[in-house]
Amino acid sequence: MDAATAALAPPRPSVDQLLALAERDMAGVDALILEHMDSSVPVIPALAEHLIAAGGKRLRPLMTVSAARAAGARDDAFRKLAAAVEFIHTATLLHDDVVDSSTLRRGKVAAHLIWGAPSSVLVGDFLFARAFELMVSAGSMRALEILARASRVISEGEVLQLTRSHEITLTEEMYLEIISAKTAELFAAAAEAGAVSAGASEHTIRAFRTFGMNVGIAFQLVDDALDYSGAAGALGKNPGDDFREGKATLPLLYAIARTGAGEAAFWNRTVGDLQQDEADFARAQQLVTSTGALAATMDLAYDYADRAKMALAGIGDPVWRSALCELADVAVSRSA
Amino acid sequence: MDAATAALAPPRPSVDQLLALAERDMAGVDALILEHMDSSVPVIPALAEHLIAAGGKRLRPLMTVSAARAAGARDDAFRKLAAAVEFIHTATLLHDDVVDSSTLRRGKVAAHLIWGAPSSVLVGDFLFARAFELMVSAGSMRALEILARASRVISEGEVLQLTRSHEITLTEEMYLEIISAKTAELFAAAAEAGAVSAGASEHTIRAFRTFGMNVGIAFQLVDDALDYSGAAGALGKNPGDDFREGKATLPLLYAIARTGAGEAAFWNRTVGDLQQDEADFARAQQLVTSTGALAATMDLAYDYADRAKMALAGIGDPVWRSALCELADVAVSRSA
Repeated sequence: MDAATAALAPPRPSVDQLLALAERDMAGVDALILEHMDSSVPVIPALAEHLIAAGGKRLRPLMTVSAARAAGARDDAFRKLAAAVEFIHTATLLHDDVVDSSTLRRGKVAAHLIWGAPSSVLVGDFLFARAFELMVSAGSMRALEILARASRVISEGEVLQLTRSHEITLTEEMYLEIISAKTAELFAAAAEAGAVSAGASEHTIRAFRTFGMNVGIAFQLVDDALDYSGAAGALGKNPGDDFREGKATLPLLYAIARTGAGEAAFWNRTVGDLQQDEADFARAQQLVTSTGALAATMDLAYDYADRAKMALAGIGDPVWRSALCELADVAVSRSA
Repeated sequence: MDAATAALAPPRPSVDQLLALAERDMAGVDALILEHMDSSVPVIPALAEHLIAAGGKRLRPLMTVSAARAAGARDDAFRKLAAAVEFIHTATLLHDDVVDSSTLRRGKVAAHLIWGAPSSVLVGDFLFARAFELMVSAGSMRALEILARASRVISEGEVLQLTRSHEITLTEEMYLEIISAKTAELFAAAAEAGAVSAGASEHTIRAFRTFGMNVGIAFQLVDDALDYSGAAGALGKNPGDDFREGKATLPLLYAIARTGAGEAAFWNRTVGDLQQDEADFARAQQLVTSTGALAATMDLAYDYADRAKMALAGIGDPVWRSALCELADVAVSRSA
């Protein structure tokens, strides 16, 4: 955003309050992550470190930690679940980048371009298995059930995306089904597992699951919007990747609907047939913006963030709850 | 083998006795496999069925079932563990075939050549996650621990193979470390988890783990030997694949050691530099056979099968034990 816009904007939401509350727990989670990504096979920690130590926002383990603390956890077994959640997430990133042939991830060259796709596939498997070892050591069969199910739903979402998302006639409903599975399910399971680990009531567990699910949907909507409006630096990946892959995300689907017959030939060629030249992405950006498709996508993201915050009304510790509501706002305030 | 050899040979060991004993349990395992490979995302059951329904010998789930029954299981929760073991195995096959760019698996075109590598990677992830869902429903935290650890060790073995197995100076010790991890660990964990599920003593659990580990090593040694001596029909994959990939398996390592300086140029070119022409595999087969490298590999396999049988001495139900000893013999008597 430029200086004039920034001056008018309300103070930017941040996870600072939440990170301060969760500082000790998150340091514990980081220590677990470092410890468990180690292996006697040298390429494994090297590749894992490339992605994990590179940072990322650790939003998903923060979900688990915050839900557990907000629900009054009395031991720190949830830290192992939080580390497991980050491992599951990292494993899916490694496999995704192979599947999509992505070149940039978390602002760095994608791992498969350095170590090769075979290593990325196998180290993803390693991290996935490590996640389950961590969950076993956390000792909650119910948390295991939640995260095993989430892992399965994520893979179903990925396959669904792979087989369906190039259809320019994709419905908004199917788009939401895909992002709920491939992205939001892990946010939901992360929060749910944290609450379960704290021994929360069924009512509280459900509330945290709903919170995580809605934050996750908002997060992916913004991610898909940023692919048309962001800069590589803030995004940590290349803007325009979705368009160049012909991925029918919501900004694109809205723009296609709003431009009607007038641009049908353009969309059919660039997205339907993946016949693109250099100037096409700029044209798509222009259409996504001028039709209000981008703004409508962001409006929907704000709507899901609001639903997330409403789900926590009256739930758990008020200090943690307020910090978690900031997290929901942060999920939608990312920009480039 | 030709007719004359067949007439002199002792009766071929078979798993018929074991399959008869385990018939009901294995039918139950098959039903669980079919039920849990289903998904609302159509490509998933299609791809999974291609590999799973195609058969394979189900040796690993048979290990779990037999260990559980031999150790006196009083419920059938072990069937879920057996189905999970087959899912873990199938997931690794799917990822392996992508990693190795294999063209043939279980006598059929490899899945990634039909559905693409991305689908194979993601459906592997699906099956892996399903395996953990099945294990959770089996309800044994210790069995979960064993199979989560095994999954991690397998991925380490695969990475080790990927990064080290093209070295023609690989030691026999390192070769055994690789096959113990990538192949034998799942046999070991399959048998161990079965015994655990039956509530067996620590002594019995350890015996079954040792049995599975040694059967697994024997099995892989024979697999690596068959790559130089087998026919595609019996093998279910293409003979010569290991040589053409420059994979330093034991028959090759023995042949390299036994041919000495005289063939160093041949091995350096074909395996070290992967510069091969059509006739090279035949030449390698001839050297692996004439130096006795193939026979020495098979001798080692028989040795491990004997160790497996010894591990079960005095352990569990004698009828099941005798059938399991046949399974150890079958692991080494496969031929083409």
